[in-house]
Amino acid sequence: MARLTCPSTAQASTPGGSATWPSRRHRNHSLKREVVVRAAARAFNAKGFHNASLDDIAAALGVSKPTVYYYVESKEQLLFECFQAGLERIRAGLREVEHSPRPGRERLDEVVRHYAEAVASEFGWCMVRAEDQDLGPELSLHIKKLKAEIDRGMRRLLDEGIRDGSIEPCDTKMTAFAMAGALNWIAHWYRENQPMTPAQVADKFVAVFEVGLLPRRTPA
Amino acid sequence: MARLTCPSTAQASTPGGSATWPSRRHRNHSLKREVVVRAAARAFNAKGFHNASLDDIAAALGVSKPTVYYYVESKEQLLFECFQAGLERIRAGLREVEHSPRPGRERLDEVVRHYAEAVASEFGWCMVRAEDQDLGPELSLHIKKLKAEIDRGMRRLLDEGIRDGSIEPCDTKMTAFAMAGALNWIAHWYRENQPMTPAQVADKFVAVFEVGLLPRRTPA
Repeated sequence: MARLTCPSTAQASTPGGSATWPSRRHRNHSLKREVVVRAAARAFNAKGFHNASLDDIAAALGVSKPTVYYYVESKEQLLFECFQAGLERIRAGLREVEHSPRPGRERLDEVVRHYAEAVASEFGWCMVRAEDQDLGPELSLHIKKLKAEIDRGMRRLLDEGIRDGSIEPCDTKMTAFAMAGALNWIAHWYRENQPMTPAQVADKFVAVFEVGLLPRRTPA
Repeated sequence: MARLTCPSTAQASTPGGSATWPSRRHRNHSLKREVVVRAAARAFNAKGFHNASLDDIAAALGVSKPTVYYYVESKEQLLFECFQAGLERIRAGLREVEHSPRPGRERLDEVVRHYAEAVASEFGWCMVRAEDQDLGPELSLHIKKLKAEIDRGMRRLLDEGIRDGSIEPCDTKMTAFAMAGALNWIAHWYRENQPMTPAQVADKFVAVFEVGLLPRRTPA
């Protein structure tokens, strides 16, 4: 059974961070583990979870398979770590705005930015597909719980925005589902060689969610 | 190599149609083929493409595996047929509004309704996952082309709505991506035992897309 490590050591990784093996002996365990997780994310992206092997991940890092096993116990565990590393960015967004005095919509926009950037990162593929990849019941349940937490956070911000007048009254459940779907789907079309940065995609999505299709008449 | 049959015989199927094998000998080939495709859609939904076998599909219908092979040549072909059956519902929506004199936004709403109902149907899983399921290059390319056609259709309606004043000016590419993502994601959360019908989900999504988060002031 795969371990549930929380929080993931990969959470602190910076976008575009190195996926090469640290060469010096004084590098610590958690950094090496993070590099393994990042290499796994790239392998899953490139070949899919079923087709990517621990051999591929070891080869990409120029290390042996036993070395990879030293940091994670299974491919399933790696997928979970990737999922959690991406999700942690969204949770960080939720934590950041939790006690902010700003209106609900502005705080929701901030979370949308974190969300879009997480899904456009190398962890995006794992974030949106992990649940479908035949994980064991324990990891599946854990993933469902983390996703439900994000959903609750977004709905809460919608509710608060409606109360403070910064968000037009709406069906918060369906709005949160639509927003999460649009954001998750970024993983299907965004590639690192896109002309837009993840932050630019995020800004565009904030505008789409805010404005809506119906014309907005300017005051006469 | 899998055949590209177009249009799919399953396109005419009604939501909730039978998945039991027609018993009388005078039933025609295309009806039986449609029943096989529908049974495949349900098997892929329940077990995933990799885990569902032609044996499962044959067993669900109470027929032999050679009987299934008489109607389709491979599991890959079945997945493609399911994908196409769902997509055909969206294309039908696009065709319906093509020469309508109604404003762009109303025509787009109509396509959104077809789209949401297609993704909430038993073909939804196949529609949104087919591309990731290690199909051969020919089918993958065909799926990409059909998806691109839907994307162009939605962007055209956005453009037309902006021109006729029924849609607020927006980045049509990003708006179409966000809408398609939200709609595709319905396949991840909608189950047939939902309290909402596919049509109700469609109406909710139309409202979410139309209104947007920013407050809309009513005329004084």
